[in-house]
Formats: sequence, C-alpha cells, structure tokens
Amino acid sequence: MIGGGRGAFIGAVHRIAAIMDGKAELVAGAFSSDAARSKASGADLFLDPARVYGSYAEMARAEAKQPAAQRLDFVIIVTPNHQHFPPAKLFLESGFNVVLDKPATFDLAEAKKLRAVVKQTRKVLVLTHNYTGNVMVKQARELVRNGAVGAIRKVVVEYPQGWLSTFLEKTGQKQADWRTDPKRSGAAGCMGDIGTHAENLARYITGLHIDSLCADLTTFVKGRKLDDDGNVLVRYRGGAKGVLHSSQISIGDENMLNIRVYGTKAGLEWRQEFPNELVVKFGDQPRQTWRRGNGYICDQGKKFTRIPAGHPEGYLEAFANIYLEAFRAISAEVEGKRPPRDLDFPTIDDGVEGMAFIETVVKSSKRGARWLKFPKA
Amino acid sequence: MIGGGRGAFIGAVHRIAAIMDGKAELVAGAFSSDAARSKASGADLFLDPARVYGSYAEMARAEAKQPAAQRLDFVIIVTPNHQHFPPAKLFLESGFNVVLDKPATFDLAEAKKLRAVVKQTRKVLVLTHNYTGNVMVKQARELVRNGAVGAIRKVVVEYPQGWLSTFLEKTGQKQADWRTDPKRSGAAGCMGDIGTHAENLARYITGLHIDSLCADLTTFVKGRKLDDDGNVLVRYRGGAKGVLHSSQISIGDENMLNIRVYGTKAGLEWRQEFPNELVVKFGDQPRQTWRRGNGYICDQGKKFTRIPAGHPEGYLEAFANIYLEAFRAISAEVEGKRPPRDLDFPTIDDGVEGMAFIETVVKSSKRGARWLKFPKA
Amino acid sequence: MIGGGRGAFIGAVHRIAAIMDGKAELVAGAFSSDAARSKASGADLFLDPARVYGSYAEMARAEAKQPAAQRLDFVIIVTPNHQHFPPAKLFLESGFNVVLDKPATFDLAEAKKLRAVVKQTRKVLVLTHNYTGNVMVKQARELVRNGAVGAIRKVVVEYPQGWLSTFLEKTGQKQADWRTDPKRSGAAGCMGDIGTHAENLARYITGLHIDSLCADLTTFVKGRKLDDDGNVLVRYRGGAKGVLHSSQISIGDENMLNIRVYGTKAGLEWRQEFPNELVVKFGDQPRQTWRRGNGYICDQGKKFTRIPAGHPEGYLEAFANIYLEAFRAISAEVEGKRPPRDLDFPTIDDGVEGMAFIETVVKSSKRGARWLKFPKA
Amino acid sequence: MIGGGRGAFIGAVHRIAAIMDGKAELVAGAFSSDAARSKASGADLFLDPARVYGSYAEMARAEAKQPAAQRLDFVIIVTPNHQHFPPAKLFLESGFNVVLDKPATFDLAEAKKLRAVVKQTRKVLVLTHNYTGNVMVKQARELVRNGAVGAIRKVVVEYPQGWLSTFLEKTGQKQADWRTDPKRSGAAGCMGDIGTHAENLARYITGLHIDSLCADLTTFVKGRKLDDDGNVLVRYRGGAKGVLHSSQISIGDENMLNIRVYGTKAGLEWRQEFPNELVVKFGDQPRQTWRRGNGYICDQGKKFTRIPAGHPEGYLEAFANIYLEAFRAISAEVEGKRPPRDLDFPTIDDGVEGMAFIETVVKSSKRGARWLKFPKA
Repeated sequence: MIGGGRGAFIGAVHRIAAIMDGKAELVAGAFSSDAARSKASGADLFLDPARVYGSYAEMARAEAKQPAAQRLDFVIIVTPNHQHFPPAKLFLESGFNVVLDKPATFDLAEAKKLRAVVKQTRKVLVLTHNYTGNVMVKQARELVRNGAVGAIRKVVVEYPQGWLSTFLEKTGQKQADWRTDPKRSGAAGCMGDIGTHAENLARYITGLHIDSLCADLTTFVKGRKLDDDGNVLVRYRGGAKGVLHSSQISIGDENMLNIRVYGTKAGLEWRQEFPNELVVKFGDQPRQTWRRGNGYICDQGKKFTRIPAGHPEGYLEAFANIYLEAFRAISAEVEGKRPPRDLDFPTIDDGVEGMAFIETVVKSSKRGARWLKFPKA
Repeated sequence: MIGGGRGAFIGAVHRIAAIMDGKAELVAGAFSSDAARSKASGADLFLDPARVYGSYAEMARAEAKQPAAQRLDFVIIVTPNHQHFPPAKLFLESGFNVVLDKPATFDLAEAKKLRAVVKQTRKVLVLTHNYTGNVMVKQARELVRNGAVGAIRKVVVEYPQGWLSTFLEKTGQKQADWRTDPKRSGAAGCMGDIGTHAENLARYITGLHIDSLCADLTTFVKGRKLDDDGNVLVRYRGGAKGVLHSSQISIGDENMLNIRVYGTKAGLEWRQEFPNELVVKFGDQPRQTWRRGNGYICDQGKKFTRIPAGHPEGYLEAFANIYLEAFRAISAEVEGKRPPRDLDFPTIDDGVEGMAFIETVVKSSKRGARWLKFPKA
Repeated sequence: MIGGGRGAFIGAVHRIAAIMDGKAELVAGAFSSDAARSKASGADLFLDPARVYGSYAEMARAEAKQPAAQRLDFVIIVTPNHQHFPPAKLFLESGFNVVLDKPATFDLAEAKKLRAVVKQTRKVLVLTHNYTGNVMVKQARELVRNGAVGAIRKVVVEYPQGWLSTFLEKTGQKQADWRTDPKRSGAAGCMGDIGTHAENLARYITGLHIDSLCADLTTFVKGRKLDDDGNVLVRYRGGAKGVLHSSQISIGDENMLNIRVYGTKAGLEWRQEFPNELVVKFGDQPRQTWRRGNGYICDQGKKFTRIPAGHPEGYLEAFANIYLEAFRAISAEVEGKRPPRDLDFPTIDDGVEGMAFIETVVKSSKRGARWLKFPKA
Repeated sequence: MIGGGRGAFIGAVHRIAAIMDGKAELVAGAFSSDAARSKASGADLFLDPARVYGSYAEMARAEAKQPAAQRLDFVIIVTPNHQHFPPAKLFLESGFNVVLDKPATFDLAEAKKLRAVVKQTRKVLVLTHNYTGNVMVKQARELVRNGAVGAIRKVVVEYPQGWLSTFLEKTGQKQADWRTDPKRSGAAGCMGDIGTHAENLARYITGLHIDSLCADLTTFVKGRKLDDDGNVLVRYRGGAKGVLHSSQISIGDENMLNIRVYGTKAGLEWRQEFPNELVVKFGDQPRQTWRRGNGYICDQGKKFTRIPAGHPEGYLEAFANIYLEAFRAISAEVEGKRPPRDLDFPTIDDGVEGMAFIETVVKSSKRGARWLKFPKA
C-alpha cells in the first residue's frame, strides 16, 4: 500500500475492503513520505518492518526483488491525487498490478499517459469508484440493460455533502487540507472529489456518455481555493438530458449520493445512504422496492451478496466488491491466464473519462458556465 | 366560479378548499363556455339555475346587478391560462374581488396589464400558488427569516411528475389536452404548469429573487407541442446558487415537489408528498424533523393548523389556507376596511414574477440554453 | 350538532368533514350544556341564534317541530362518552338520523340498548371510526377480500400517542380532562379512546373477530384514574393471532396508528401518519408501495378519491369519506328509499363490538391479565 | 472454527467479522462432522490441510499440542445449538478462549453448566448477540444510561422475518432444516433463533430484566415441529411494561428487528435494517435523528466507527464490533493480564438469561399462555 498511514481515511477503507473476504493480505507499504511515520503506520498494522518503506520508489525497487513466493500481487495507491500517477506508473512498469483510488490522476493529460502505460505493460489497473460495487447499483444497471427501463430520457444525479461548510482546511484537518489544495487535488475541489463519483455512477448504470455540459461551480467559503459546490446541466449522446449537482457546503448532508433515472418504461431511484434498496417505478403499477439479498435479484447482483436480505450491507462491502473483481483479474494476470471477459470494475478508461469530466466542468464554469462539448476519449 | 365544470380537476379543488372552513358558499358560476354544460355543472353543485351562466361576461353583467345582500364577495377563475386575463380584468373592473388559478396569465405582457388593473381597481387578487399554504412551508420560511438557516448558499428545488410520459393529449384527455396546447397554455408546458410552482415555492421560503438563469427545456414525447421537461441553473441576487428542475415525463413520479435550502447555519428539506414534516439539519447536531401541529411550530404555522400533530393534513388543507388568507383580505375589502398588514397569500406581483420566469426559461432554452438576466418586474 | 363548542377538538373535525364536499350544511346545534357558551359557539359558526340551544333535549323538542323544508336530515353527536347514549336515543326516537363519535357509548350495556333503539326506529346511525375512511385502508381490505393476502395468520396493530406522558389533566386541559375521567370516559382511558380505533381498523381490514384476549393495562402517570397504556394478545376466530398495543405515554409519538397483516400469500402494512401509501409484500417479489390516486387502486378506493396521486389527502378527507357514505344512507332514509346495499361506514354493530372490546380488556387486565373469551355480540 | 463449512450461513459471517479489522487470522477448523466435507471447506479457505479436522474433539486434542507461537488464541463455535455446549466445554477446558454463536446452548441447564465451566477455567467466552455491536444501539444505551430517556415505562421490541412462511424444511434447505428440528434447535424455533436477539437487544439498551411474562407461541406452518411465531407480554422488574413479538411467517419481512423504548423524558427508536440511524423523540421538541459517524455520538459509539457519517455500515461491521471487544479480552487473557474493565460484549451471563427466556416463553405458552415468573439467574 502506498499512502494510507495514520490520520488517513481512505487507506483504512481499502485495507478493510481488501481483506474482508479472506482473499488478500497486506504485507508491505510506504504509508507516508515521512519514513518514521511510515514505519509507525506499518507497526500499527503488524507488518514486517523490513517491508515498510519511506518512499514508494524505495518500495518498488525493493519489492521487485522479492522471490516469487513473497512477491506482491498488487499495490494499492491511496495518496492524494497529485501522487497518483508517479507511483502508478512506476509500479506498473515494475511489473505490479495496481489498485488506484479515484480520481485517476492529477489532470487529464496524466490520465491519458497512465492509460498508455497500462496498455503497454498489460498489467491490471483497477480504479476504485467504489459506489458501482453496490449490489443494487448493479441491479439498476441490469434493469437498464435488459430493457425494463426503456429508452432513457433523464438522469438526475446528486452528491451533496456538508462537511466543508466552514473553512475547515484552516484548522489543518488533514482530509480538508489536501482536498482543497489545487496543488494536490487538481483543478477541481468538490467536483473532483465527489462530482466524479456522480458522473461515474450515472454512466455505470445508464451506459450513457456525456455529449456536452454546462457547469456552474462556486466557492462559497471565503479563503477556499477550489470549488465547494457545482451544478451541471448535461446532454447525453443519444438525446437524454441530465442534471448533476454536487456540493460540500450542503450543511447537514453527509454523503448523500442519489441517482434517479427515467426511461420510457420505468424510473429508477437509488440512494447511497440506504444502499440495500432500489426503487423501481413503472408508470401504471405499484411502486416497487427491490431489496438486496432476494431471489429476484439479478445474477450479477447475487454474485456480490454476502449475507441474506434484511441484513444490511454497506459502504465497505460495496468497496470490497470492487476488490473481489480486482482479485479475479489479478489472479488471472499473476497466473498468466487471459483475463475473464466479464470483469466488473472501473478501469483506466473510466479514469480518463472522469478526468475529462473534471477538466470540462472547470473549463465550462470558468468561461461563464458556457456549454462545452465533452472531449473525445 | 368561472370554469371548473364537469371533467375539470382544479375547479373541484378550489370548491373544497374554499368551503372547508365554513366561511364561504358557492352561489353562482359560468362553468363552461358551453351553456348547457355550464348548467349541468351548476345542477351538480345544487346551484340556483338562475345564477348559472353560459359565459363569464354574462355572469359579470348579471351578478353586478345583484342586491348587496346577495352580491358575490369574490369570483374564482379556474379556466385554462389563455382565459385568465379576460375574465379577471372584467370582474375586477366590475367591482369583484378575484381568486385566480396559477400561472397568472397567458404571457408576461398580460400579467403586467393585470397588475395595472389590480392597482387601479384596488380590488383583491389572490393567486393560488397553493403549496405556500402548507404549514411546514411557512415554518421553513420562518427559519430563514429568523436567521436559523443563516445566509442562504444553495437552493435545490425539483418538481417531477410522470403523467405525461406518453402522448396522452392524443387520447383527448382533458387535462393533458389544454396543458400541452400553446394556444391555451402559453409559451411553456411543464415549466408553466409546475415549474412556476417550484420557482414560487423557492422564492416564498427563501425570499430570494432570480438574477439570471440558464434553462434547457426538452420535449421528449414525439408530437407534443410544448416542453415536458426542463432543467435550470439559477443564480440568485446576492450570490446564492440554485438548481431547478421539473418534468412531466419522470415516469412513476406523481407530484414530487421537493425543496432543499442550504444556508451557512442550517439546511432545510421539505417534500410535498409528505407535507407534515420539515427536516432541519444543523451541521453538528442530530438531524431534526419538525412536524406540523406541535407546540414548537411558529405562530404563522399554528394559525393554519386545523388538527393535532400526527393527524395528517394534505393538499386540500394547504389550498384552503390560501383561501383563509384570501377571506381576510376580501372581508376587509367588502367591509371597506384597510387590508390587514400581515396577509400571507400570493398576489399579482408573484404572478408577474412567475410569468417572467416562464418567459425567461423559454427564451434561454430557445437560444441554446444560454444564460439570461431575469427581467426587472 | 350536539357538543363540539369552543375548545373542543373533534367537533371542528366533524364540521369540516361534513361540509367539505358541499353536501351538507350546519344549521342548528346545542354546543354546550352551558347555554351562553352554546350561543357563543353558534355565533362563531354563523348560525341562526334561534336554532342554537342550551341543551340537546331542548334542541330535539324544537327541531322536531321544524317544517319539512327546514328539518334536520341528521344530528351529529360529539359529546364526551357518557353523553352519547342519552342524546342518541332521544334524537333517533325523535325521528332523526344520527352521526355519533366513537366509542359508541359509556359501556357495553348502553351500546346494546342503543342497538335496540336503532333497530326499532329504523333510523341511520353512523359511528365515526374515521380511519376506515382512508382510501388505502379500503385498498388493504380489498386485498384481503380478493384473496391476494391469502389466509391471515397474524395481525399487528399499534396505536401509540405521547400526549398524556405527563399529568396533563391536572392542568385542566379539556381534552385530557374528560378522557381520563372514569365518569365521563367510561371504564377505559387509552384503550377506550384509541385502542378501540385499533381494534376497529384491524377488524375492518381483515374481517376477523376476536375470539379471546389477554390484556395488560397500565396507568403510568401518578394520579391518573384510567389506563394510559395497554398491551393485548389476541386470538382471532379461525386461528389467526394478534398483537394490539396502544398508549398515550409513548412520549414523542403523535398519532401513530399502524397496522400490519400477514397472510399465507402476502403481507400488508399501513401507517396512519402517511396514509396515502400501503405497502404490500409478496414473499418472492419486490416490495410494493401502492399509492392513492393511481389507476390500479380498487373501485371502492377510487370512489373516495378527490385529488390525483401525489397530492396528499389526510385525516380530514378520510373523515369526510365516512360522511359521504353516511349521506348516501341518510338521503335514502330521508327520501323513504331502501338503503343502498353497499354502504361502507361503521354502524352500531361496530359500536357494540368496540364496547365489548373495552369491557373485555378492562376485565382481563383487572384479573391479572388473564385470557378471556370475547363476549358474543 | 467449529462448524461453518460449505452451505452454512453464520460461519461465513463470523469469518468476515473476525478478520475485517486485520486483527485475526483463521488457521484451523473442524468445519463439519463429515471429515471429507470439513477438508473441502478448509481448502476453500486456503487453510493448511494439517489443521483441518474431522471433529472438534480431534481438533481440540491436536491444537492443544501446538507450540506457543502457533497456538490458537480462540475458537469460534458456529454449529447448531445442540452442538454448542460439548465443544465449548471441551475447548474452554483445553485452555482456549471461545466465541460462541447464540443462543448459548441447547437448554437452560446446559447454559448454567457452561457458566460454571467459564467461571472455573477463567477463559473468555463471548456470545455473539451481534446486534448489540451496532453503534446506534450503543448510543441508545448511552441515552438511557445518561438519563436523557428518563425512567423507562415501555419497551416494544419486534423481530419479524418471513422466510419460513412455507414448509421450507421439507425441501431440505439447510438453514430451515436444523432450526425447525427440536433435537438440534432446542425447545423453541422462532423464539430461540431470533426472539432471543430481541430479548437481548432490549436488555442491552434498557438494562431492564424481565420479571414475568406471558407468551403465546404458534406453529402456523403445517408439519413444522417448533414455533414459527410468538407474541409475548412482558413485565420488567421496576414496573416497565413490554411487548415482544417475533415471527418467521411474517411474509415479506426480511430481518426487521426494531425496538422502541419510551421513558418519562424521551422515546428511542432503532431499526436494524437501517442501522445507522437512531430516532430520539423528546415530547416537546422536533424529532431527532441521530446518525452514526457524527461528532455528537457518544464515545463508546465512536470507538466502533470505521467510516464517516453517511457511509453506511451494516450487519457485518456490527458483528465485527463484537469481535473487536472479544479481541481486547482475549489479548489480555493470552498475555496473562487482567481483563479490561469496560468490556462490551455479551457473556455467558447473557447466554443464561437468553436460555431462561426461551425456557420461560415455551413453558408459558404450553400452559395456555399463562403469566410466569422469570427464573432467577
């Protein structure tokens, strides 16, 4: 693991998600660019001190020399955005598979370079847009794919949080600090951090790609350097329309990623904070609530179901589902087999599309919230 | 009552709302421009046939001659939009107070003319943006007014319906028929019919006026002549941002007018389909659900409370609340007194603002969803 | 109207419910046994002072002499329980139809006497167990009747309120005062006031009659004279089991009448505070939420639907639905016609069953919460 | 691990819960009394075949001889109820700490014997009444303990499931098979399997112990040998009253463990299927929804919080919280230290109380649903 030392949030999430199903073990890490801090974090995690490093470069060098039996199957990168590309490139080129936190990179150019590296090295790169790991999200996608929803007309996706309602970064709070710093976070704040999740979720469920968009980003908190709120009108290829809004100043909201999809035959509604349910609305029938764990759930949903209906699964289980798929790909790679055809995790292509989203919303907003064509991948 | 005969929807609503509290009685009407139909509707309502008319003009003439004891205190106009201004003007000028269904008129120009008529005749004109009659909407406004919400940053208001997901007007369904006809409905379909409610509700609660907007309207159903969906980015005077979207092709949604307001101190959330509750979110406290009928409800909310907490009031009661306020104004007018200072109902000024909203969103959308300044009232 | 003067709660509810649909008018009343108070209440309601009386007996005498054209079609009795039987008997025997608030009478013996009076006079008596007026309650009953639910196994009905969590009657609060007074309320407090609603609702939906029960009533608030909480195990005729609990010390609960019915084929769930929805659970299908106003609602439900789906109807509308049915019966009676066969309102038979319920739970509880057979009607 | 091989449900849950936080590793098991099946399960779990056994007795013997470095810190027992006591006794007496699935044993007598063994061996025994691991359950308990709820008056706890609505055991479905078999499950079916969870949850939150109860158990499905539904009236020591009902024929319900607690000052409401929220109702204030992960959550709740507010945790995380506490006790035991004073997991004392509950409800029901004193522990 690269990053994710003491005080980090997403590192711990990755660790739980990766080991939950008994299919992986953490054995090495460069948890901080401060060597002592990295060591301390390694000790917290019961690691062999010899495999805890002061930098990712050192780790790549040393771990590349491990004998086959001890060799890492993959590396997890959970550093701030500006530290995604360099280690990802290095580890891929050093022969390791990579699991990378989102958004893919610091900017679109880097994402495209990373795509080239992945292509060239033929290693596995998994991007943890974790919300697509939810069973009911997979069910929603299935209802689109199997035609139950009909032709999609409208998508409303929203992701309000409230934790940056105040000038939190001034207090030195670590999560706020780097996420609001253009040098580490990239061109966008809120839209990069969570707006990309909204874009990704909508695309995953609907299969729709953005044709053009008009974005109005705002920095509400005085002194903040990046957007903390953004509202986007979307036109999808093929004629569907969309509204995407995201915020970190929506005071009192926690992690309210919600999506509604309306087709000619049915509407879908999924709320991340209550992830075990999916509302399905046919125009002329009683409203349906599909619930995780039941017999009527699609095969792809059942595959990721650990416990019966009514026993709520949550954020960590969905995250672990991304890992389950990652493991299938990584196992095949490690064993020199062809990758399974039905892999279901976000790839560097999703990462490129996400970075294109960030770049486009920022550009649109800077030009007075003008409509812009979404760039070709 | 003008309009609202057999097969109408909103006419019956007005009648129930107006009489519910035992403060008014229906005594005359021109329920249809078809005289026989008007008579039949009058008979359904147990009216004296002598006071049931074949046209509003005939009614205005005849009723103006009634002796004081039998004279109408006010007239309710519930015809399609293109038939708002002519009877409103005539009745006002004939000395009657008027309750007028929304939107105010066919277009903005008419609304301004009507405003002039109201000013000149000094009669009462009440516009039934009924949702502002809800107790918890009044409570929301109070929390903005008393500073609990702080400075408003963001407003998300949405009004999806699904009943026009198909080409319903082709079947001759009366409600669909006129609402999708530009000659009767005006320049907008969905945005005029319900988008204006969303705009009005947001303005009522927040007190904010739109500075500029960018609207993307769509007609999804083939053959339809007006928009059946619209997404709008809003910039309010003073710096708040907004998202307003409204639809009649959101399949499976019924009448899902929802609003969220985020300030520096608290967030508010109200859902029309569950109108007895208001969610109040302070950033660092348990989320609060304020419920109609309790002791902590503001005075203005209590004033419009018929039954105790837990006994749900609904759409008709909120509508009737508009009438309760109308009656206070009308009583004063009839008795030649000054109008009370604290009247709480939508006026022709709200009507003008609503018509400006319609005109601006249509214009914006036609120009490629460009940002447009909201016109001065 | 008998009772329901200033300070009363249910009187105002009856008035709104009775006039809401434009089919009745209040013309006379004995609103209080204090003549001055009665007069004042009559004036509040714009009544002709000549028809406002100081006692129900005076009113019965005077109104019986009215000429046919002005004769009352029915009398509404909304006095405390001990004042139900005397006026009901008098008015029925004086030739008037009667709408009577629940529970029917002071005790079971009176209820049986009243049943005899109704039978003998052949007048209409309507008991306002208002919750059965809800459209979605009618839909629930229909799903039982049409076999969708299968054979019923279990019924859970609960009615917690919290308003009597403190010794409110000590403050003189009028509603608390008489409801906790055994001389006016009868043998039970909470169980008589709202437990009977729960029993009635369960019986209406399921058609099941209680075979035996075991009741544990409690008076939690020191100084109170009647039960403020009760828990009842129920065995229904035919083998279904039930849990019925009701409380007025469930602090923070408002009017939370909820019912769940489980059959061999499906489960039903209805919550009074959100009355426009009915949850239907088939074991192997997505959970369904049936919503008032849709095309799939049963005919009997549609009959009582004033406004479209998504426009919430509430307590008053459900109450008014009882009146709509009452009017059908009363019209027939007044016109000397046979009563319609499909009348759907609670009758004196329901009243007798309700009083038997009160008597039995009180007796069971007093005997140490022993099982008792439910008395034959 | 003892039990939990292929086809088992709760074994997999224990494994995930135990390893989720990176603090334990599965190294040995006797997963089935069928040696081949046990081996196969061990292979599924990547275990060293040498440490996979054909019987728990064999395992106890062999593992007791492991050198200190490889010695098991604890054993997890997840066999059917009749196979709880023998291995628990054996492992405790062989010097191992034990995590034991609920209910504790086959009957009360065994539970008392097990208590004696625990006392004598001074080993740790953790009983996985997992629902008490939920953060919001801990918060609920804290609100009782710190006086916010006041003196408790009423407890309503319910646990309906629907999965045994049909004669599922006839199909050979493994979970149904043993749970409905009196030889393996014990004297109760539904009440033992999940009624005990309800009893335990209520006791954990309120601290109240049952004084007497009256239980009406039913077997609705023809051919079934144990109860599949039970309704219980409860009187707690100190005067509070309770309703506890539980069912496995509540068709369409999944795992709907809900609890409501009403005190003199506030009411609490927690629903297992939406575990991140706790509703707190003060009589005269807006209703509060406390949500996991926020700053206002009590210290004991925060201790068990892995991820921020709005990122839902679920069943597995709550289960893992029991393990986190188990590990603290086990670590101390292994290191020969005194156990921490603030351990927060269910013990054999809870197990004895649970078995007493089962015995008493069965006895009460058999005697015609008579009131019985709850036995002294």
